[in-house]
Amino acid sequence: MRRINAGIIGFGTVGTGVVKLLTESRELISSRIGADLCLKYVADLDIKKDRGVTLDQGVLITDAEKVVSDPEIDIVVELIGGETIAKKLMLKAIENGKHVVTANKALLASSGSEIFAAARKYNVDLGFEASVAGCIPIIKSIKESLAANRIHSVSGILNGTCNYILSKITSEGTSFAVALKNAQENGYAEADPTLDIEGFDAAHKLAIITALAYGMTINLDDIYVEGISGIALEDIRYAEQLGYRVKLLAISKHVGEGIEARVHPTMIPFDNLFASVNDSVNAINVKGDAVGDMFFVGRGAGMMPTASAVVSDMIDISRNILSCTSQRVPLLSYRDENIKTIPVVPMDEIWSRYYFRFTVVDRPGVLSTISGILGNSGISIKSVQQTEEKKEGPVPIVMVSGPAREADVKKAIANINTLSITDGNAIVIRIGEDVSH
Amino acid sequence: MRRINAGIIGFGTVGTGVVKLLTESRELISSRIGADLCLKYVADLDIKKDRGVTLDQGVLITDAEKVVSDPEIDIVVELIGGETIAKKLMLKAIENGKHVVTANKALLASSGSEIFAAARKYNVDLGFEASVAGCIPIIKSIKESLAANRIHSVSGILNGTCNYILSKITSEGTSFAVALKNAQENGYAEADPTLDIEGFDAAHKLAIITALAYGMTINLDDIYVEGISGIALEDIRYAEQLGYRVKLLAISKHVGEGIEARVHPTMIPFDNLFASVNDSVNAINVKGDAVGDMFFVGRGAGMMPTASAVVSDMIDISRNILSCTSQRVPLLSYRDENIKTIPVVPMDEIWSRYYFRFTVVDRPGVLSTISGILGNSGISIKSVQQTEEKKEGPVPIVMVSGPAREADVKKAIANINTLSITDGNAIVIRIGEDVSH
Repeated sequence: MRRINAGIIGFGTVGTGVVKLLTESRELISSRIGADLCLKYVADLDIKKDRGVTLDQGVLITDAEKVVSDPEIDIVVELIGGETIAKKLMLKAIENGKHVVTANKALLASSGSEIFAAARKYNVDLGFEASVAGCIPIIKSIKESLAANRIHSVSGILNGTCNYILSKITSEGTSFAVALKNAQENGYAEADPTLDIEGFDAAHKLAIITALAYGMTINLDDIYVEGISGIALEDIRYAEQLGYRVKLLAISKHVGEGIEARVHPTMIPFDNLFASVNDSVNAINVKGDAVGDMFFVGRGAGMMPTASAVVSDMIDISRNILSCTSQRVPLLSYRDENIKTIPVVPMDEIWSRYYFRFTVVDRPGVLSTISGILGNSGISIKSVQQTEEKKEGPVPIVMVSGPAREADVKKAIANINTLSITDGNAIVIRIGEDVSH
Repeated sequence: MRRINAGIIGFGTVGTGVVKLLTESRELISSRIGADLCLKYVADLDIKKDRGVTLDQGVLITDAEKVVSDPEIDIVVELIGGETIAKKLMLKAIENGKHVVTANKALLASSGSEIFAAARKYNVDLGFEASVAGCIPIIKSIKESLAANRIHSVSGILNGTCNYILSKITSEGTSFAVALKNAQENGYAEADPTLDIEGFDAAHKLAIITALAYGMTINLDDIYVEGISGIALEDIRYAEQLGYRVKLLAISKHVGEGIEARVHPTMIPFDNLFASVNDSVNAINVKGDAVGDMFFVGRGAGMMPTASAVVSDMIDISRNILSCTSQRVPLLSYRDENIKTIPVVPMDEIWSRYYFRFTVVDRPGVLSTISGILGNSGISIKSVQQTEEKKEGPVPIVMVSGPAREADVKKAIANINTLSITDGNAIVIRIGEDVSH
């Protein structure tokens, strides 16, 4: 049986998962592809640590250079993360004619053009299914299953950490801080959770999906990013009363001649499937002109789901190798010469409905002042909630707007925040009705 | 630009959708595949009918033989349905070395072995993504994205007609007959709806999925099939009170050394995603050892969603043609020599929880008689509902069981049905807790 040699760089969680899956499913994989997908190397600086998996003699090495240089290696799996060494190794592997599989969304989102250009030049395959939404086959679906569709929008719960935290606050009524601590204790959040909770990780994934969905290049800086650290239990409770769940949503939409690309907390109506996706689970909705709405739900992170996506790419590449072809499907979904420049709509120009919570002094005329400012900015109010408070001190006013332009909302809110009747800290959360069926 | 020639046989709804999509997305498709996917023929006996699409001179023909014989044709798309002529044409196309795309689940479920054997012999590709769940990429996902997973189960709402009817009964409180009539008027059900409402269509799809998921051959006759025509509004209302929605579920499960394969109405707990999939929408849950639960939702029928799946197969095959390869992925997910015989578990041996509704005379001792028979058969009762009825005459008793063996339930129910205190027509609906996350 033909042998295909793979080398893994990075023996962390996902690396260990890939080793496990390749070992446990070796026979299963060969019964599907008709070749033996072998692990020749696993490179990691720490070769002492017990990861609970057994490797053959000589497989575990410290020298990553060997993986990208050994002429016998067909596929290099980059799982060290980070952007410097990973990029250097990946480019070297490509230059040496090796196919590459990676889960490194940050690197692809920031240096994608350079890496994809190199892969095209050296005619090697580059698999990155694991970089977005773990085991959900969104990359393959956009590149292959939806290939005849003009895609109108792709929205998703793309960060498991944020979804876990928001679900905890919702179900257990804890504060953000407590939910974050819980996520860290349970391995759902890093010690430094910034990348996740501030929305950057979701933005990296959105950049990759957006490029594939519309056949365009996109700069990470053009994506509006707002995280969940400002979400209070109070707002989640008001959202519930209004019939919404709060989710961190990554949204890209073809609107007119441009593309909206944004990540922010979003209130989702209960009857929308996104509202039922809880804990660390991910979900993606794609709207295409032929398929209408298509919805995927699955584990977006974790050792084995991510490993499954990595190995599916290795299998795909193996099948290309066995068919003596490469880049059978264009790396970025469209052929290089057909990748367009599409303008990204500035955040100020987007339209949405909004949830506002103002903390105000309990005095006559306050409601009329605030609603006056909103009305003068062309923002209609669809519902207002101001309940009689038993306690002394400032009181909340909760409002839901009709469709309004972001710039108008920003201006009106800035205006309201200057008033002495408010605490200067209005809460604004966008409402997403049209993100899934 | 290289030209790939396709011919469609059958200019019905899906055929028209494929023509539309190939015409409207011609440029989009060529910008993805780097070749021109051309429609050389559309064959149909009725060439007079206006389908609202324009074909070039000479494309529309009556002679299907020409499509399968013309040496210039690369891909034959079979969309006439039925099992006799479709099979003949498909086999002839394959013998002539043409790749085939079809949506004909009935034919694949009944004559799959013969057709796949021919495709293997002549080394042509056979695309059938459209045969199961319309635009949901379940075939590609099982064959490629989940290729490293041992699949534990695949369950799905695979028939849009049934889901539409059950949703109507639930949301509008109509009878089954009225909901069916409504479905027929709105184009969601055929004039003769037997194939759909009796569960056979879902069974055809389940046969295809089961073969792919476990790498096995399965006879249609080995699948237990029970349709929805016996579902009364009353049971849907009781289900709601108990926290369930009734769905027609197709279930295949690897249990021990065997495979369970069955289609029947199933009560789904509210918090399960299947419970939120309404109208004619389809959904599929796959459990794999590495990915855990993966859930897909999308349109399972209709002109454009089905056309999207057909064209995605045409694109896949075109990419193989352009890469000078075929059967890059085994037709049936596993390589021929690795397809196993796995026994199908007899329905009598399955375990499930059950919902029972007995119609009984209002007399002391009835409840104890019925629960006595169930208890003696090893069926534990988890909840009982018998509300005081104002009217005279028979009264309902609703029960929910703990896990029980189908054979024991059948025997106990047959026993209860012979009692003079009941109307002899106990309603039994299986409860599916473990069908999705």
